[in-house]
Amino acid sequence: MSEIIDGFSKLSKEEKVKIICDKYFKNSNASIKTIKDYWNKNSKIQKLHDEFTENTISNFYMPLSIAPNFLIDGEFLAIPMVIEESSVVAAAASSAKFWSNKGGFKTKIFSTEKVGHVHFEFEGKKKILIDFFNSVKDKLLESTSSITKNMKKRGGGITSADLIDKSFELRNYYQIEVKFETIDSMGANFINSCLEQIAETLKKLASNADLKIDVIMSILSNYVPMCIVESSVSCSIDEIGVEFANKFIKAVEIANSDVSRAVTHNKGIMNGVDAVVIATGNDFRAVAAGVHAYAAKDGKYKSLSKAEIINDTFKFSIRLPLALGTVGGLTNLHPLVKWCHELLGNPNAKKLMSCVASTGLAQNFAAVKSLITTGIQKGHMKMHLLNILNQLDANEKEKNLTVKFFKDKKISYHDVANFIKNLRLK
Amino acid sequence: MSEIIDGFSKLSKEEKVKIICDKYFKNSNASIKTIKDYWNKNSKIQKLHDEFTENTISNFYMPLSIAPNFLIDGEFLAIPMVIEESSVVAAAASSAKFWSNKGGFKTKIFSTEKVGHVHFEFEGKKKILIDFFNSVKDKLLESTSSITKNMKKRGGGITSADLIDKSFELRNYYQIEVKFETIDSMGANFINSCLEQIAETLKKLASNADLKIDVIMSILSNYVPMCIVESSVSCSIDEIGVEFANKFIKAVEIANSDVSRAVTHNKGIMNGVDAVVIATGNDFRAVAAGVHAYAAKDGKYKSLSKAEIINDTFKFSIRLPLALGTVGGLTNLHPLVKWCHELLGNPNAKKLMSCVASTGLAQNFAAVKSLITTGIQKGHMKMHLLNILNQLDANEKEKNLTVKFFKDKKISYHDVANFIKNLRLK
Repeated sequence: MSEIIDGFSKLSKEEKVKIICDKYFKNSNASIKTIKDYWNKNSKIQKLHDEFTENTISNFYMPLSIAPNFLIDGEFLAIPMVIEESSVVAAAASSAKFWSNKGGFKTKIFSTEKVGHVHFEFEGKKKILIDFFNSVKDKLLESTSSITKNMKKRGGGITSADLIDKSFELRNYYQIEVKFETIDSMGANFINSCLEQIAETLKKLASNADLKIDVIMSILSNYVPMCIVESSVSCSIDEIGVEFANKFIKAVEIANSDVSRAVTHNKGIMNGVDAVVIATGNDFRAVAAGVHAYAAKDGKYKSLSKAEIINDTFKFSIRLPLALGTVGGLTNLHPLVKWCHELLGNPNAKKLMSCVASTGLAQNFAAVKSLITTGIQKGHMKMHLLNILNQLDANEKEKNLTVKFFKDKKISYHDVANFIKNLRLK
Repeated sequence: MSEIIDGFSKLSKEEKVKIICDKYFKNSNASIKTIKDYWNKNSKIQKLHDEFTENTISNFYMPLSIAPNFLIDGEFLAIPMVIEESSVVAAAASSAKFWSNKGGFKTKIFSTEKVGHVHFEFEGKKKILIDFFNSVKDKLLESTSSITKNMKKRGGGITSADLIDKSFELRNYYQIEVKFETIDSMGANFINSCLEQIAETLKKLASNADLKIDVIMSILSNYVPMCIVESSVSCSIDEIGVEFANKFIKAVEIANSDVSRAVTHNKGIMNGVDAVVIATGNDFRAVAAGVHAYAAKDGKYKSLSKAEIINDTFKFSIRLPLALGTVGGLTNLHPLVKWCHELLGNPNAKKLMSCVASTGLAQNFAAVKSLITTGIQKGHMKMHLLNILNQLDANEKEKNLTVKFFKDKKISYHDVANFIKNLRLK
């Protein structure tokens, strides 16, 4: 098939860009220029970013923004946020300021346990497997000693290993469930390396004992319901208003009872969560998968946050499963990630969990507040106006006139385009 | 409180950077330089990116990569991917090539319906509310006519509006559920504007009729189980091997039955999905929330993909709820997003749904294939080696020696660091 591009990964970056632009773009030169416009002027910085992943051709810009005035556990922080959606950072900053003179965000870490599994099939009597597992458990763990050595020095390592019977769900299916403490690293590589070693040892020992054990796979889980942080804000009900508090609570109850609403409610939380997760070099797909599955843990997808009135105090809180790292991965590699860590005072993993959860809660507070008062569109479209203007290639004068004109009006792309069109006809 | 930074959003970008670096960094000048190192040399491009959101201070780089050789519905495409995790793009490209001579990815769009709600409370007899809703329904819809006019011209608009009784879940709680067809736009602004207008009209008409209707909020839902794309690959079982096929199917069954495994299985799918969603300027938090809630729709969080053997044919498929846009938002604004759309042949929303789902499936195929054969760490750590080397500031000679030395060995940060240390001692 002549359409196949062979050996693409082995081409230089320049060659990759050329072959792609020649093949897929009408104006090849212009498309090459666009890609190069985004290369860093400093070749050392550029080379670093080229090597993060495979087949990279340029740097995709996401805005790095700052949400100041977050009072978290008594400390004022400026939160770094990487997010392309307008109004999210403004919302976070406005929530942060609102709560800063009401005690701010208080957080609590419940546990930081991570988990992984050797998934395998065993044909035979369960009792035989249990006895075998108990007899080899120490050997399985010992075989990871060269991998766990350094983690142990830091106070972490494997905390438990158990045989789990899943054969009532799938024929002959069992797991070795291994739990881990990975201190300040997210631990994916560490956990997977341990699990694969345990699986290798398991196969060998099973074969020696003439047991039919067939390992399917060994991998960490991104479902981390034992790695939980809570963040909350509270104030006397008078400070926030009884009517507002009650309506706010109703809105959160709705998100708890209606799946359609819950998904968007939690999406708003993730606007805050993901923005900090990305800025600090963590894996947002892992976080999102774990968080959303946690939202569905009771058999129905529900709100992640909770609003209540306890003895005339309004309390708004969130519990999130967050497996984050502040060492390893991109955290020591991406200069802007390093910068974001320093901005947060080079936090350990627990402190980062607190920052992320608080930003998610701040975001949720702002979103629900907008929804039950002015509506989401007023703020959102104002923020979006500049984007529409840029899309229309408006100059500074046009921008100023448009912002002024739409100050008290509903904004739609169509109306803004018409307004600009009329300006230009004048 | 003197720690509060007042009026931050009104400062210039330079002032924002200075105030933050002075306040939070040991070496203020060095931290300012890091931020500026990432500014685009072209001030027009930079200004554009500065205005995407609020309080932006720099451009956060995510690698833009290409996964070539995707045969989707008979057309060879190169898929743009924005992802910071190593090995994801290589995995997608390798899957794409593997399936390219076996018919490639075949996709099907089941529906493209989006939904939003006016959430409200009503005190009174249900029958009265039903009669009232039926009597004002046309007026509610008519009141959106200036908003829907342009969408109607493009073939979209509001497709239905229904009263939903949710009072069995929460006291007095009802919804007006409105369904939308938004053609090639994701439609968030359009849908929210329509809903807020319907809510306004509802309030007015209810007040005229002396009915106690209290609107809590009006908003679209990111839960889009009626906006579904399927992508699949298939081949004769001989081409892929009976043993491999059976083990693959078992691995997917495990992901279907065990929540811990399902979360990581789907996380791998989202590695592919999110990378294309970001590259094409769509909202990955919205997509992730909708997809993961869909994975939990049966009361238990399950695998999004399915593997089976039908008449000696191995089939691997995925169904995803995806509300995507190819017009509006960032799609016409971010030069690299525009570039990515042109790379894909300026697709409409349906074609983009097909590309995204196929990339997710490709990613999942590669991940499960690794897991049940060599294990995930071998490929992953090889890809990660360059990152470790960069972290250790290795020069070219050191890099070459290290890659050669670790060719057949297990890679850990610790071992690589030791190897480099020894090299430097020589």
